[in-house]
Amino acid sequence: MSIDGQSRRPRADVQRNRAALLEAAQRHFLRHGVGTSLEAVAKEAGVGPATLYRHFPTREALLAAVLQTRSQELVARQEVIARLDDAGEALRQWLRAVEEYFSAFNGLPEPLIAAARAQEPDNPLTLSCDHIIATTDEYVRAAQRTGKVRPSVTGFDLFLAASSVAWVMGTGATDEESLGRLRGLIESGYRPSDGAQ
Amino acid sequence: MSIDGQSRRPRADVQRNRAALLEAAQRHFLRHGVGTSLEAVAKEAGVGPATLYRHFPTREALLAAVLQTRSQELVARQEVIARLDDAGEALRQWLRAVEEYFSAFNGLPEPLIAAARAQEPDNPLTLSCDHIIATTDEYVRAAQRTGKVRPSVTGFDLFLAASSVAWVMGTGATDEESLGRLRGLIESGYRPSDGAQ
Repeated sequence: MSIDGQSRRPRADVQRNRAALLEAAQRHFLRHGVGTSLEAVAKEAGVGPATLYRHFPTREALLAAVLQTRSQELVARQEVIARLDDAGEALRQWLRAVEEYFSAFNGLPEPLIAAARAQEPDNPLTLSCDHIIATTDEYVRAAQRTGKVRPSVTGFDLFLAASSVAWVMGTGATDEESLGRLRGLIESGYRPSDGAQ
Repeated sequence: MSIDGQSRRPRADVQRNRAALLEAAQRHFLRHGVGTSLEAVAKEAGVGPATLYRHFPTREALLAAVLQTRSQELVARQEVIARLDDAGEALRQWLRAVEEYFSAFNGLPEPLIAAARAQEPDNPLTLSCDHIIATTDEYVRAAQRTGKVRPSVTGFDLFLAASSVAWVMGTGATDEESLGRLRGLIESGYRPSDGAQ
């Protein structure tokens, strides 16, 4: 990028910094949640804050980059789920996958649903949410066609429900049984009331 | 408290400090959520951090004191709700009151449900949650006696559901319509599936 021959950072160095930042960020997000100190991330990666901001101009950009691996896992899971015959079971499994994606880091559901609503084209989290909401909508419509979901329910409703279950998971304040009961309550909520499976 | 005559803080001063701290904390919790800087609270109240910690040894203690006014409002609302004839409507209104209590400050549902599960006798938020869960249980049982709630649903299930709706409210990322739909989903979830009102 320098034409005066003063560039002291060769391309390999730039890539090494980026990788070190992503690895440090992943560790810090896991340990301290999405609000973790970005200065501490830069320090652990062995770079200055300016280098961090050059690679990732916003916290959302760093978060989106760290989430990319998890997004790929979610897409892989979606491919498996898409092969299920039972549309109701496919929706159930998809919602669990979304919950797990959303609870990757403490405090993650909040910027994700904010991104979903704000529809800021510059927010790198928006794209991820758009994909999740659109996919949830597809599963909901498929399940509605076979009478497994009430006609009034939308993909966004279940996106909100899954993100709030993920929030409860992230608080660490409930056991598996309580979480299962909360999921059961939501399932009873979206299934038709006439008892038809 | 001093027997050597060196007490420079008369009782009136102590009470004035406490009132100033509560007022500043209320403003800061409203503006910045429950994770607000306690140093900034002390500064705005015109006292040092040591004085803040003498009055409120933990963030939870300060939060519990600020919430006291809101708790009284919740109790007042409960008295009105208790007079309703329709147990299903009473439960519905009670859950709305809990949601509003929980969304008083951004980030409040998290320490509240943590307190509910941890059952630390020293955590001043535990008492508040115990009361809310016990009251929710009463409303659930009353509604179950008239067939308005599935027999399998517990007060704690709906406490969790209400706190997650409050969390969604706190994110500010959804509109009233989406919130209404999420509440509707939960209501469909706890109502009997045989269509009986």
